[in-house]
Amino acid sequence: MKIIDGGICSVKGVRSYGIKPGKMGLAVIVGEGNAAGVFTRNKVIAAPLIVTREALQKNGKLAAIIANSGNANAFTGEEGLADAREMASVLSTKLGVDSELIGVASTGVIGRKLDVGWIKDNIDEVVDSLTSSPQGNSQAARAIMTTDTVPKMAAVELNTGICIGGIGKGSGMIEPNMGTMLGFVYTDAEVATDVLDSCLKKAVDKSFNMVVVDGDTSTNDMVLLTATGASGIKPDMNEFQQGLEHVLTDLAKQIAKDGEGATRLIEAQVRGAVSEGDAKLVAKAIVRSPLVKSAVFGKDPNWGRVVAAAGYSGADVDQDKISLAFSNGSDSAVLVDNGKIVSEDNELLEKLGSIMGSPEVIIKVDIHMGDSCATAWGCDLTYDYVRINAEYTT
Amino acid sequence: MKIIDGGICSVKGVRSYGIKPGKMGLAVIVGEGNAAGVFTRNKVIAAPLIVTREALQKNGKLAAIIANSGNANAFTGEEGLADAREMASVLSTKLGVDSELIGVASTGVIGRKLDVGWIKDNIDEVVDSLTSSPQGNSQAARAIMTTDTVPKMAAVELNTGICIGGIGKGSGMIEPNMGTMLGFVYTDAEVATDVLDSCLKKAVDKSFNMVVVDGDTSTNDMVLLTATGASGIKPDMNEFQQGLEHVLTDLAKQIAKDGEGATRLIEAQVRGAVSEGDAKLVAKAIVRSPLVKSAVFGKDPNWGRVVAAAGYSGADVDQDKISLAFSNGSDSAVLVDNGKIVSEDNELLEKLGSIMGSPEVIIKVDIHMGDSCATAWGCDLTYDYVRINAEYTT
Repeated sequence: MKIIDGGICSVKGVRSYGIKPGKMGLAVIVGEGNAAGVFTRNKVIAAPLIVTREALQKNGKLAAIIANSGNANAFTGEEGLADAREMASVLSTKLGVDSELIGVASTGVIGRKLDVGWIKDNIDEVVDSLTSSPQGNSQAARAIMTTDTVPKMAAVELNTGICIGGIGKGSGMIEPNMGTMLGFVYTDAEVATDVLDSCLKKAVDKSFNMVVVDGDTSTNDMVLLTATGASGIKPDMNEFQQGLEHVLTDLAKQIAKDGEGATRLIEAQVRGAVSEGDAKLVAKAIVRSPLVKSAVFGKDPNWGRVVAAAGYSGADVDQDKISLAFSNGSDSAVLVDNGKIVSEDNELLEKLGSIMGSPEVIIKVDIHMGDSCATAWGCDLTYDYVRINAEYTT
Repeated sequence: MKIIDGGICSVKGVRSYGIKPGKMGLAVIVGEGNAAGVFTRNKVIAAPLIVTREALQKNGKLAAIIANSGNANAFTGEEGLADAREMASVLSTKLGVDSELIGVASTGVIGRKLDVGWIKDNIDEVVDSLTSSPQGNSQAARAIMTTDTVPKMAAVELNTGICIGGIGKGSGMIEPNMGTMLGFVYTDAEVATDVLDSCLKKAVDKSFNMVVVDGDTSTNDMVLLTATGASGIKPDMNEFQQGLEHVLTDLAKQIAKDGEGATRLIEAQVRGAVSEGDAKLVAKAIVRSPLVKSAVFGKDPNWGRVVAAAGYSGADVDQDKISLAFSNGSDSAVLVDNGKIVSEDNELLEKLGSIMGSPEVIIKVDIHMGDSCATAWGCDLTYDYVRINAEYTT
């Protein structure tokens, strides 16, 4: 497996494009094949998710995706549902494909009527520009951004020549609204719908579902995986799963790193838990803790907050067994060893200083109670997070 | 029932005092009787909680409480446990009571050895100043403060003349550490230990357990209730429970309002849930949401975030049935009515402006699915929260 450029456009059979002239953005991705989706667990579900889920349930296939930024089309009732169907219909007419093969996604402000007129006005420009060149990928990735500061894309080529590529967007606020995680992933492998379903679910659980920016779950979160089959190759499923997880994890880390107001990526690596569920509870509690997040912003190796988060996570934890280290990938500083506090000599303090100043702070916790592990990603809590989310007034 | 001044010192048979000359503070409360306690659910439990729980389990009684601020005596191993026992022993000797009748509490930095010498040096001054005057109450309430900005106390007199009074401290950081919620509550009613136990648990579930400042659960949280019986009156249990809940709720609201960096109290009132558990999930999700908290700081009536929090809370919620209003106690502005967005005319916007500028913002949600209700308290998320928790460097 090797990491390649190009995102979704590195996948045979995929063309895309997008525009983002102002707050509203429009992206179209064309790539036909078996498809699977994972949707928000929020019980308040945005209209486009309902439409996309219906399409997947009925056909197990997608021909194209239409996505807008600037308006989430969430909490918009029957009218919102009609608007989401209208989006599918607009693209369906333009492409000449069945509207029940179109995935629809939206991100932006909740509770405001979607301006479908704007989408109709701009669909020609986007569809006429569809391309399999890298520009198609980056234009689509940019078009779905809200307060994301950078477009997010990732791709790998498996040993068999199969490509898996994706674009994503993360937790940014464009307006008084939830951030939304969207991921559109493609592969040119030949894979059946039910297999795609289980591969995607497994990969999302290890990647997108392990990202916490502020602990709020959006009404619009969605990850779609389409297999165009254009490579003509049936993949080795182990390698395929590995490649898929790489792409999704890469996108997930990009999303965490670009969280609202973030200056640093926090990675919590937990091992030694009695179950994978427990390992996830601890890892997510650490990256969710506002105290840990504030400490990382302040470059403070405040391990007491990490231990406390492990303690209240709900997982089986014994304070006399925990080990804890901060790392930046190259250097590592052990602060607690099997429940014993390591005395902080000058060498340790110097190492800690350089680790806490790194753009990626890795918090390693070993619970020493079992064999399970998990990794979660988050970002620091900064003045800018508060500013971004407080200063907009409806 | 009437609300009275004096906190714990309004309760017959209770004397207290405290000092807080610097970061370390020391409080002693003397009041003998049947006693019950509620302790943190964090699996990392501080040493003083272990000592206090043992005392209650063995005797069902307390004679006195010794509490320090400035050091949590948490994650301090066997040595920490010995230090907590030493605190009990120091007070026991001074008062001439069995050390197994002494409750011990600590709040402050995690993972540092407690300076028991400082406590020994200062115990005489505190014990010699013990008084049942209001000064005793306020000195003790001040001595347990960390970054709390005001001491917290509440008391009521029941119709039968029984008094219930308490002091508390909330989520403040003194150092690189969790905020801790402590509550010491006394009554002069005659109540058996097992009855106190169930009364306290029920009252804490409606009060302290419904406060969220940042969603982090301390290693040191503890609420103790002692019944001195000095009034000679066996209470009407309904009235007693009502009085106890009033005192604990009052303390809980004071704690929420004085959360780190807070400028406003947020009260989430949820009704129409299918169960009390569901109502609590929704109420706590709202006051925990960093997006809702930031919006309240920014005076932004951002109801989309409230609806989204209800949706991901885990409770049964139907977006087509939700009603939602913002209120400040006198004015109320309905924004969503049975799933329909209320159009925001000038009158509504004006009312909203005044509500969002109030020191207490009440968010009322009716789920319209059942008969259960719950209330939770929190505070806004501000630049100062980030500053307080980021700028300290170990």
